[in-house]
Amino acid sequence: MMKECLEQVRTQVPLVHNITNYVTVNDVANVLLACGGSPIMSDEAEDVEDITSVCGGLNINIGTLHKTSIEGMYRAGRKANELDHPVLLDPVGAGASRLRTETALGLMKELRLAAIRGNISEIKTLSAGSGTTRGVDADVADAVTEENLDAAVEFVKGFAREAGCIVAVTGAIDLVSDGSRCYVICNGRPEMGKITGTGCQLSGIMTAYLVANPDNRLEAAAAAVCLMGLAGEIGWSRMQEGEGNSTYRNRIIDAIYNMTGEELEKGARYELR
Amino acid sequence: MMKECLEQVRTQVPLVHNITNYVTVNDVANVLLACGGSPIMSDEAEDVEDITSVCGGLNINIGTLHKTSIEGMYRAGRKANELDHPVLLDPVGAGASRLRTETALGLMKELRLAAIRGNISEIKTLSAGSGTTRGVDADVADAVTEENLDAAVEFVKGFAREAGCIVAVTGAIDLVSDGSRCYVICNGRPEMGKITGTGCQLSGIMTAYLVANPDNRLEAAAAAVCLMGLAGEIGWSRMQEGEGNSTYRNRIIDAIYNMTGEELEKGARYELR
Amino acid sequence: MMKECLEQVRTQVPLVHNITNYVTVNDVANVLLACGGSPIMSDEAEDVEDITSVCGGLNINIGTLHKTSIEGMYRAGRKANELDHPVLLDPVGAGASRLRTETALGLMKELRLAAIRGNISEIKTLSAGSGTTRGVDADVADAVTEENLDAAVEFVKGFAREAGCIVAVTGAIDLVSDGSRCYVICNGRPEMGKITGTGCQLSGIMTAYLVANPDNRLEAAAAAVCLMGLAGEIGWSRMQEGEGNSTYRNRIIDAIYNMTGEELEKGARYELR
Repeated sequence: MMKECLEQVRTQVPLVHNITNYVTVNDVANVLLACGGSPIMSDEAEDVEDITSVCGGLNINIGTLHKTSIEGMYRAGRKANELDHPVLLDPVGAGASRLRTETALGLMKELRLAAIRGNISEIKTLSAGSGTTRGVDADVADAVTEENLDAAVEFVKGFAREAGCIVAVTGAIDLVSDGSRCYVICNGRPEMGKITGTGCQLSGIMTAYLVANPDNRLEAAAAAVCLMGLAGEIGWSRMQEGEGNSTYRNRIIDAIYNMTGEELEKGARYELR
Repeated sequence: MMKECLEQVRTQVPLVHNITNYVTVNDVANVLLACGGSPIMSDEAEDVEDITSVCGGLNINIGTLHKTSIEGMYRAGRKANELDHPVLLDPVGAGASRLRTETALGLMKELRLAAIRGNISEIKTLSAGSGTTRGVDADVADAVTEENLDAAVEFVKGFAREAGCIVAVTGAIDLVSDGSRCYVICNGRPEMGKITGTGCQLSGIMTAYLVANPDNRLEAAAAAVCLMGLAGEIGWSRMQEGEGNSTYRNRIIDAIYNMTGEELEKGARYELR
Repeated sequence: MMKECLEQVRTQVPLVHNITNYVTVNDVANVLLACGGSPIMSDEAEDVEDITSVCGGLNINIGTLHKTSIEGMYRAGRKANELDHPVLLDPVGAGASRLRTETALGLMKELRLAAIRGNISEIKTLSAGSGTTRGVDADVADAVTEENLDAAVEFVKGFAREAGCIVAVTGAIDLVSDGSRCYVICNGRPEMGKITGTGCQLSGIMTAYLVANPDNRLEAAAAAVCLMGLAGEIGWSRMQEGEGNSTYRNRIIDAIYNMTGEELEKGARYELR
């Protein structure tokens, strides 16, 4: 199944409209190309409707919010909904500021989302309608572990039902649920947390996967998570003496560029609950 | 000739003012340093006139347009014209949205451009005064090929005459014309299309080449195109097992950093029509 | 002492709020992670007070100023002052435009800064209350050299007293003073000037060092400068045939990622005047 999801992306070359932060935007563009998609970025309110119309999906990331780009998010999202394009929300830093939390909650309310992808703190914030996050990283106290896995799975399933879309919570253990089923994914390396933007990159990839696999969205979202984690493992295995997080960033994107459907199928480590 | 163009850049270290998109801006800055120039970025309307005054040329790229940066483009462009600095326009995504098309056409009308650099779809859009583009990549149907080369050369020559400036259309085959002569350039690798921003990078380099070679602008523009393509070839030849588009991006900039005039002269593959 | 400064950062993982330019922001984020800190970026006026409140320090960089982000700088700065968080100012391009010069001077006047870090032209501009800078690079005529070192040390000490904070002037020789003492630092490589943003990166690191070493701020600022320079030396020693400024950028961040307190202590080359 994951093999097919990957291959659909490479075959269809889905064009993804990204309204994203200026910190990690270059990596998001390169990783979209690496996975077989094609990126376009635009956040100006007067530009976004035209741009999203020529695309297949929309990736909204609130990492460096501007008042002006918020309007662009709403306008692009409504147009994408009208055209029935999948819309993904990455609520970066929800819980860390009122503006971010309110914007994420407002977008959830106003738009029909296909997926939400964030860390556990951000997702808890959205679930609670408020909260606290330590910067853009998940609260360690909130991490999904073997010990609290059952509760975490129930929480994510519940929130996916509430939100009416796929919810992906990423961390040491990743959870991807549509409300009834939940993928529990163990790919990845802890060192990925020392690279800025691996979450943003995953959101870009996941949007491309959702576009190219309209009939298997849960599997597609899970495949995107496995792909990112597996690329993190492959990239790490290629690290040489003296290399650090900057080279690791390149090696992960390189691994995504070279990933085949067979390798993803074989390397994905997950169970379905 | 290309050797001299490259060496002039390395000797003069032209300072280039870039109003460019936030996706590829870091690569544009690094590639300007790699080729021997020096970059400065500023798009705030109240800042750009001062900044462009201390520079030698202006590179305008409409990749992530904001209403506020559009005003900056006009103000910087007028000041650069007043100071007789070369101004280059990179109409990223012209044809994909009304705002981009109108902004590119407006800048063409209002400013005295030294050069326009884009893919064939974008250039056709400007030529037609309207059009359709698939995202930021050229329409495959529009690609310049051996089959339609004669017609493409005539089209580019004609548009360069109309626009009153050098026009560079880049793709598998690159065309660079001032309206009477046209360089047909075959350097490059198809894999360069899997890196975000090679076009934006080329526009930055080309601006530096125009600044440093005021008496040979057509040759300078062609030399910049050959440099980028040749660097793509050299970078590709250094790729190792497991590497992909992220490392390739680094290797291309590295190749530009190390390029000598002799290597460019020897490696440039073109004919003049 | 430098060893302790580095280890405090790795132990405390200081969260740094960055209001910085969109050119080098990704490298600033990755280098903050590499040195042991954690980055968050936000420049929207309505977002910055909340964000800076969850952080330990604030790094203000005026590299690509927008009218809207200037308000964010003031609001974040006042809040950080209220919370007694260290605030660093990087006056990129001060002297190159009226807006940049006035903004830098205005921030100096309005905020209680812990440190200012810039090249000699920028610092002279702030000292004079006006000036001229060649783009974002220091005027060669103004470079700190063995010949003018005594005068330069006196100048930096004097400006640090005037400004009431630590002043770091970086170049071939780096000077870091609190007004009474001055570190004269000789780490680094000239090739670092061919990478965009090594100064911006250093400002990010220095902010993290200031946060984590509240009782030894001068030493912490000097340790950050030595770290960056030493990483430039280590990164350069690992360069291979055919590599250039793009790979060098990665190797420097990698070297910071791998740096231990012992290596920094041993590799730091400085004298205290």
